[in-house]
Parts: sequence; structure tokens; C-alpha cells
Amino acid sequence: MSTIKPYLDQLQGLDFSGMYENDFLHTWDKTTDELRAMYAVADALRSLRERNISTRIFQTGLAVSNFRDNSTRTRFSFASGTNMLGLQLQDLDESKSQIAHGETVRETATMISFMADVIGIRDDKFIGAGDAYMKEVSESVAQSYADGILDHRPTLVSLQSDSDHPTQSSADLLYLLNEFGGLDALRGKKVAVTWAYSPSYGKPLSCPQSLITLLPRFGMNVTLAHPEGYDLMPDLVAKAGEYASQTGATFTQTNSMAEAVEGADIVIPKSWASYAAMERRTKLYSAGDAAGIDALEKELLAQNATHQDWHCTRELMEKTAKGMDTVYMHPLPADIEGVSCEHGEVTNEVFDAHRDGLYKEASYKPYAVAAMIFLQKVKDPVATLAALEEAAAPRWYQA
Amino acid sequence: MSTIKPYLDQLQGLDFSGMYENDFLHTWDKTTDELRAMYAVADALRSLRERNISTRIFQTGLAVSNFRDNSTRTRFSFASGTNMLGLQLQDLDESKSQIAHGETVRETATMISFMADVIGIRDDKFIGAGDAYMKEVSESVAQSYADGILDHRPTLVSLQSDSDHPTQSSADLLYLLNEFGGLDALRGKKVAVTWAYSPSYGKPLSCPQSLITLLPRFGMNVTLAHPEGYDLMPDLVAKAGEYASQTGATFTQTNSMAEAVEGADIVIPKSWASYAAMERRTKLYSAGDAAGIDALEKELLAQNATHQDWHCTRELMEKTAKGMDTVYMHPLPADIEGVSCEHGEVTNEVFDAHRDGLYKEASYKPYAVAAMIFLQKVKDPVATLAALEEAAAPRWYQA
Amino acid sequence: MSTIKPYLDQLQGLDFSGMYENDFLHTWDKTTDELRAMYAVADALRSLRERNISTRIFQTGLAVSNFRDNSTRTRFSFASGTNMLGLQLQDLDESKSQIAHGETVRETATMISFMADVIGIRDDKFIGAGDAYMKEVSESVAQSYADGILDHRPTLVSLQSDSDHPTQSSADLLYLLNEFGGLDALRGKKVAVTWAYSPSYGKPLSCPQSLITLLPRFGMNVTLAHPEGYDLMPDLVAKAGEYASQTGATFTQTNSMAEAVEGADIVIPKSWASYAAMERRTKLYSAGDAAGIDALEKELLAQNATHQDWHCTRELMEKTAKGMDTVYMHPLPADIEGVSCEHGEVTNEVFDAHRDGLYKEASYKPYAVAAMIFLQKVKDPVATLAALEEAAAPRWYQA
Repeated sequence: MSTIKPYLDQLQGLDFSGMYENDFLHTWDKTTDELRAMYAVADALRSLRERNISTRIFQTGLAVSNFRDNSTRTRFSFASGTNMLGLQLQDLDESKSQIAHGETVRETATMISFMADVIGIRDDKFIGAGDAYMKEVSESVAQSYADGILDHRPTLVSLQSDSDHPTQSSADLLYLLNEFGGLDALRGKKVAVTWAYSPSYGKPLSCPQSLITLLPRFGMNVTLAHPEGYDLMPDLVAKAGEYASQTGATFTQTNSMAEAVEGADIVIPKSWASYAAMERRTKLYSAGDAAGIDALEKELLAQNATHQDWHCTRELMEKTAKGMDTVYMHPLPADIEGVSCEHGEVTNEVFDAHRDGLYKEASYKPYAVAAMIFLQKVKDPVATLAALEEAAAPRWYQA
Repeated sequence: MSTIKPYLDQLQGLDFSGMYENDFLHTWDKTTDELRAMYAVADALRSLRERNISTRIFQTGLAVSNFRDNSTRTRFSFASGTNMLGLQLQDLDESKSQIAHGETVRETATMISFMADVIGIRDDKFIGAGDAYMKEVSESVAQSYADGILDHRPTLVSLQSDSDHPTQSSADLLYLLNEFGGLDALRGKKVAVTWAYSPSYGKPLSCPQSLITLLPRFGMNVTLAHPEGYDLMPDLVAKAGEYASQTGATFTQTNSMAEAVEGADIVIPKSWASYAAMERRTKLYSAGDAAGIDALEKELLAQNATHQDWHCTRELMEKTAKGMDTVYMHPLPADIEGVSCEHGEVTNEVFDAHRDGLYKEASYKPYAVAAMIFLQKVKDPVATLAALEEAAAPRWYQA
Repeated sequence: MSTIKPYLDQLQGLDFSGMYENDFLHTWDKTTDELRAMYAVADALRSLRERNISTRIFQTGLAVSNFRDNSTRTRFSFASGTNMLGLQLQDLDESKSQIAHGETVRETATMISFMADVIGIRDDKFIGAGDAYMKEVSESVAQSYADGILDHRPTLVSLQSDSDHPTQSSADLLYLLNEFGGLDALRGKKVAVTWAYSPSYGKPLSCPQSLITLLPRFGMNVTLAHPEGYDLMPDLVAKAGEYASQTGATFTQTNSMAEAVEGADIVIPKSWASYAAMERRTKLYSAGDAAGIDALEKELLAQNATHQDWHCTRELMEKTAKGMDTVYMHPLPADIEGVSCEHGEVTNEVFDAHRDGLYKEASYKPYAVAAMIFLQKVKDPVATLAALEEAAAPRWYQA
């Protein structure tokens, strides 16, 4: 695309004023217009960058990251998305900090925020904990801003909680809309969001939950499949159904992987732990019950092992709309049979055939991060994007 | 403030030429004019930033940090203060480095300095060690500059040693002068710098020492209070008295917390270890005497425990000049009764009533850091600040 | 130097077009013209910086580092060299990442590269491993670029592998050509690259190998000396001989340190492990044979200990062309007798007399890094350097 004008035209017709000075914690906090605006800004930023036009809007300023769980993809996406706006990344490494036992969240949040324009948090390990922590950080900095302690309010971006993984699902949707030719082209597409076997356990619920609560909002027909006992959070499953009914799409559930992928245009098989198991685990961690945690791990791994037939094979792909050519997605890293494990989520044959698509899917995450921040920090995104394109300052100068 | 002109006027009347290309290791190395200049520059930088005017003076350049003790507040203050000038932070993480046993300080200091404009060091654990280390780093880079190895001399900022904590006390003074309406308004104010009980031990002496050696220089009447056996370094206590006599202020000592806060305009209760205990600890660490260290810890905790009545309560605050409205300060994190401990430095009631002030106090630290660096790296600070305001380049661009 | 024009004139006569969009993994991958170009660009960048002219060519962009071994000098050189071009450093800390067992190099390489302009890797511990890893990362990002996943190809810079240490040897040559007055002045100079005793073991082969394969290309007569059993990789020793014969220089080997330094203009004594020992070690690590590793360490330390007379003393220096004034080099940190060890590579007397030279040697590494990246990312380096000098934007602004 040689100009971002089409994206600016899209933005003109949308009401996204609520995003300015707000956070991005869950896609369900946002209107459909707001999500559309975010996709348009992400694509505009990508177009500018690919044409070597600087998107730097901050001369100085910090982006603070707080990873309470390991990360490569999201860490680099946050580093990249904030860097393309001109922010310097500063990691709050809790192991190197002086965060005393009992120091309040409000205090730490305020102390790191005097020059922070955005705070990105990953906290996905325990049911309820991640969302509660992010909410508390958000309220803390809002309060400190209201009290005149902060001269501005840093806005938050969730880099994954236990309920949602909005930068991932946004990257997924950006990939799909660019592959299929726009959001309208996604309407009516059949998507299988399905559990798959993994030799490890305790993978976050937030990945499948972020998909079933987002895709129906754009008219996609979603089938959620998992073995009995691998339920997601009930309120989010209910939300998926509500969104589907609002757009005239369907949201169905099944305990058969084969049934879910039958005729599907898009398949997204990935392992997760059950909500019930994660709740038990959260309680055991709270109680510091190491023996209980070990016992639960053994129990869950044994339970997983009875479902090794839930994996994505050529045979399974043949049931989909376009066979091996059907879109296969995964947030990565995947458990690939013969590569990272003996039995896993997907065979090497299927993974390898979809490698390019999977990597492209991932390539949208830095732009999703940048677009969220752009909309939260820029009062008139259309004018600002237009001004950046007009100025055409080279990101990478060469005489 | 809609212009920095008043701060520039203040600077015009001061002699601070000695700060250029110098370090900031202790406030007592600086003249009162130099300190006044630093406060004026800090307030000017804050005014520029709050009006979205870029204070970036470095297009590229490194700020090297070396934290030999954990830190959140000071780490983020250094990251923020250096970022607002355009420097990129590079941490010297000694655990990831190849600093061999026996490698000289001069070598490491030179190796990290080829493109470093400033070096910030926290080394506060052992008596004498921090000051000696910083002095050696400073002399090393000066020598390497003199020898033509470095094309410039990176200047140092102490981020806390065992004797002084100049970025903290500077933030404290900036807070006070802004709260009371200028440095002149602080003259004659009564300040209680008092020990308080903590369930942990070994807290640095540098916090109270940085206060008693600074506040009397601006005419504040300081009372230092602690139980018997919790003495600070004798030469710094002597220095406090000398400064007081120079400005016509008083510096008194007492073993009664109640006496110290009687009629005080400002109270600063905080725990610390005694100088004698810290010296014993330093020797035990040098000797690698683990059993001795354990025994000392037990002894000191037991000693602390006999002074649980040294805490800041509503009852105590009622003895001060304005009761609960009297300014209460702490460098944070505090040991708050009922929040982070059962018995501690301050009750939750007092802490909570002063939360906003405490956080504002902390908000000055990034500006103190930036002002120190600005004065050390800029030959004509008045002209440069004026030029920044005149240019009015937006820190955060929005069309 | 008050202008970079002489360096630009040098560049005009050289063919270095092959460096653009290429990697820098070994000096032997490069033509002599390309190496000359790199030295000229390094000196030009140094001249610009020393005259406070900004060399920032990137408004935004990431430099990714991946240190699989500890580092201070090279870490700060990479931080400095990338910062002076405007890139933000982002470290791939494998301990904090989600790099799962079995995740392919291609996947990780792609995931960190969406906005990476350059990737720097240190992987020097195991024979064959470092080169293989860097080659795989390079091919991975090239493939992802070819497949349309990346919008550009990040280029690589080796920060030391098991075979070569190109940023170190480039810094060494920059130091030498600046000390001796140009590359032509180095022709015919006698260099002793000699093993020296260290109380530790397993030091990389890549340091001596990087020297013997580089210096003969510029007509220097190299003598390689080591005790029996401390052989380097045979193919690189052979390469050294070939380069020497191409330029009319000599490359000789001896088992006598004294013979090697006889009449030498430059001496470079440093410890290393033998190729054969490193191969055994690599196999033991692959097999996870902890007992075998311990036994090998004991054997090698005992073998080292029989060669404590291989050290650089005043007596040895007296045999060289200019005695104590002869150029003594070391990549640092050195094992200095009486400073970091009882017996080691060099006496304190010799080290101390050459300290300034050693530190200057090190000071070229950030410029070597920056020059490699500049030539890899800038299509017309001459025009771009000229434009930077012409613009003369201050790196460090002062009104």
C-alpha cells in the first residue's frame, strides 16, 4: 500500500474516542468500532514503517514492562511496538527491585510511573490474579494522577492475563483480515478453536478465551472443541455466545475435534488446562501446598495423556474446507510431534506446511501493541498519522 | 508555571561553575550555590516536561547504571532522569559480566565508558566501601580521559553510598521547597530526623545522614533522635553541627522520639542500623564469617525489638506543630504497621494520611537526577534551558 | 582530524558493495577491500563523534543481542556501537524467554526480528556450536525475509564464536593502524601471537585464531608460538599460511615463546585451550558427562601448570625490537601476576607499562561494531557519512 489514506478513511467513520487515555486490558472492554480503529491504525503504522517513514511520536518517555511469566514473542513485540513510537523500554524486574513484602501495588505502580507513558503487564499464571493486579495498577496510577502526583496518566496494555490475551488475539485478527481481504470477508467463516494434546500441562486459558470472545464479534462462526473436563471460564463462554447472537454468527461447542474442524475455514488447535484444574492449582499455590501441587500435576498430566489423539494431523486437516490449504493458526511455540516432543499439538508435516502463515500471524503483534498505545496516547490519531506520512521523515536515514 | 524564566533568574545570581564536568557524590562536596542551582534546574526541567517541551539534549549516548544493591525507586528515577535528556540506559549487571576476580576497578570503569556520558552507582551495603568504590571509578575515568583513552570524561552520580544518598535528599528538599514556597520559607523550620523501629535490620545509615548534613545548610533546625546505641557516623554528625552554626540554625540530639517531634514542622522517622553494628558487619563479611553474621543479625534484631515504641503514631503526630497535618516524610518503602508488618516505623493511619505527600516527595527524584547530569554536562545551563523552552519541540508529538 | 574527507577518499577507491545487507561473521568471509572499508568507516565515525557530530541514522529500530557467554567489554561495545547509530538495544535473555526445548532456531530468530535491524551474537563455548548457530540464525532471517514474513533482513554481527572474534581483531587492527600511521606502515612488521600460562583453563581459541588469519592479510609477519599440545584449529592455521603467501608475508610456528618474540614489533601473549581438548570437552558436554568434565578440567589445569614459564616478563620484552617500548596487546581481562593471580599471562610490570595502549586498543571496539553495521545497513556509505558531517547535528546539544 503506497499510502495510508484508505486506513484513515476507515477511521473517519468510527467512534473510538473512548480509547484516548484509557487502558487496553480485554477486547471485551472495547466497542467493535474501537477494535476496528485499532486494526486500521496497526495497518497504517505497518504501511508507514514498511515505506521507511518514521512513526516516532515520543522524543523521550518510558515504556515499562512487567513480566511475571517468561516471554519471548510478547517481550519483543512490546519492545518493538514501543520503540517504533520512540519510547525507551524499562523492565520492572521484580527480582532486582526493592519491592518489599507488603509494599502496596499502588506504591510500586506510582513509583515506576513518574515518566512512564505506558505500562505493559503479563500476569497469566493464576486464576483471577492477573486481571486483579492489572486493575489495581490501573486504578493506582489513575488515583495518583487525580491526586496531582503524576503529571499524566500512563495507560496500560495487557500482555496476557489469566482471562484474555488481547495483543495475541489482535495479531490473530490482523493476520486473518489481511489474509482474507478485510474484516467483511471474515463474516461467515467457520473457525475451529480446539483443544490439543500437550505433554506439558497448565497452559493458560487466555489464548482460547481471547479467540472465542473476539471472532464472533466480526461474524465468524466459532466452534469450541475440547475433551470433557477441559472447560473454559463459564462467563467467557457465555460471552462468546452473546457476541455470536449479536452478529448473527454461531457459537457451538463439542467434545469432538473431528466434528469441530469439519468444513472449517480456519483451525486453531492448542492445549490448555481446564478452568477447574487451574482453580485448584491457584488454591494450592496460595496455601503453599507443594505436595498438593505435585499431585495435581501428576493427575493432570495423566488426564492429558488419555487425549493424545487430539492433535492436528494431515488426516484431520483433510476434513476442513480446503484440506492442507486451510488456515492453521497457533500463538507459538507449538508442541510439534517429532520436533519438540513425541506426541503433541500438531504433526511436523502440518506445522511445516503452515510455517510462513504462523510467522506472519506473529508479525502483527508489534503493530497491535503500537496501535493500542497510539490510540491511548494520541488525541487525534487521524491527523497525527496523516502528519507523519506527510512529513515522511526517514526511520532509517540514507543519503 | 508557564515559563521557566523565574528559575533562570535564580540561576543568574549563583556561582555553580564548579559543577561542570564534575561528579555528584555527596551534597557536602557542593557549595550552597551549587545546590540551589541544582534545585532551580530540576524545577525548570519539570516545568518544561509538564508543558510537553522536549528536554532532549543528547541525540545518542549512554547512561551506565551499576546497582550493587536492589532498587526500584532509584533505578526508575535514574532511568527516567537520563531518558528525559536523551541518554540510553545500559546496566552493568556484574552477574552477567566477565569481571574477573582481580580485574581492577580502573579497567572495568574504562571499558564501560567509551560512550558513557554519565555513570550512576548504588553501593550502600558496607561501611566505607561505596564511597571508596565511587571515588575509584571517578579517578579511573578522569585518568583515562587525561591519558587520551576516553574522548570525554563521563561524570558520576551517586545513587546511594554508605555515607550519603544525595538523589534522595535532593528530592526531599525539592519537595519541601515546593510545599513551603521556596528555600527561604524553610529557614527556621523545625525538623525531627528520628530513628524508628523496623522488624528488619541493617538499613543504611545514608538516609538520615543525608538529611542532617543537608537541611541545616538552608537554616532548618534539625533534631536527631535515636535510642542509645544507634549512632550515625561521628564525622557526619559533627558536620551537621557545623552547617547549623554557619546558618544560625540549631542541630540537637536526643534519645527521645517524643522530645524530637515536639513542635516539629516536619517529621522524618525511619529505621537504620547503628554505625558500630555496620562496622562489625562489614568486618564479618570481609572475613567471610557466616556464623558471625548470623549471630550479629540475631543480636541486632533483638536489640531493635526492645524499641518497638519508636514508631510514628497519631499520638506522636499530635505533639508536632500541626498534629496530623504536619509534614511526614519517608524515602519509601516504609514498614507500615498492619500493612507490611505487625510492628514497624509508622502506623497505617499516619502513613495513609500522608500518602500523597510521600509520593510527591518521590516524584522529585527523577528531576534531581536529571538536574545533576544537566549541570555536569552543559557548560551554559541558563542559555541551554532557555533555548529548549524557545524551541518548544514537543516531547510527545500530536498533530 | 578536522574532517572525514581523507577516510571518504580511501573509501572511493575500494569495492565493498558486497557488505551491504550482508553479515559480519568472520573476517575471512570478507575481501581485503571490505576490511579496509570497515576500518575507514570506523575511523570516520570516531572522527564525527569526537567532534560532537551526531551519527544517528536510525530514528527507531532495535539491535538485538544474544550473549550465550558472559561479557562486559563486548556487551558495552555492542551497546555503544548500536546506540551511536540510533538503535535501541534489546537483549534476548534466554533465561527469561519462553524458548521451549525443541523450539527451532528459525522460529526464535524470526520472532525477535520483526523490528530488528541488527542481531549480535556471542556463542564461543563449544567447538563448532557458535558458527553453526550464527549461520542458522542468518539463514533463518534470510528465509523469513524471502518468504515475505520480515519486511527487511536484519544483518548479523558475530560478537565471538569458537572460530573467530572479528570485533576484537578489528579493534586490534584499528589500534595498530592508528598507532603505526596507516595500514601500509604495518607491512613487514613482526608480530608474535603466543600462548601464555593461565591458572584457569578453557579460554577460547577464537582470539589467537582471529589474529593469525587477519594480520598476514596486511603483510604482517606472524609467528605463532605455543607449547606442544596447544594447537589451534588446523584449517585456520592453514588459512594463516595462505594469506601470508598471498601478501608476501611470513607465517611461522614455534614451540618457543622466546624465539617468537625475538625482534618482534608487536607481542600478543594470551592463554587458550588446545583444539583437541576443546573437542573432548564439547563431546563431554554433549554427553552430559559431569565426571568426565571434571576429570578433563583437572588434566588440563595440570597440563597448563607445567608451562608457567610461558609468561610475559620484562626479560622477555627485552628480546623484542624495542624492549619494554614494543607494542604489547591483549583483549582483556588479562591474568596479571600479583594482581589477579600468582602466576599468569603477564607480570604487573609489563601490564602496567602498557596499560594506556591496552585501553586504547579496547576503545576501538565500539567503532568496529558501528562500522560493520553501517556498511551492512547503508547503501551509499560515502554519501551518507558526508551528509552527516555536512549536517553537523550536535550529538550533545549545548546552547
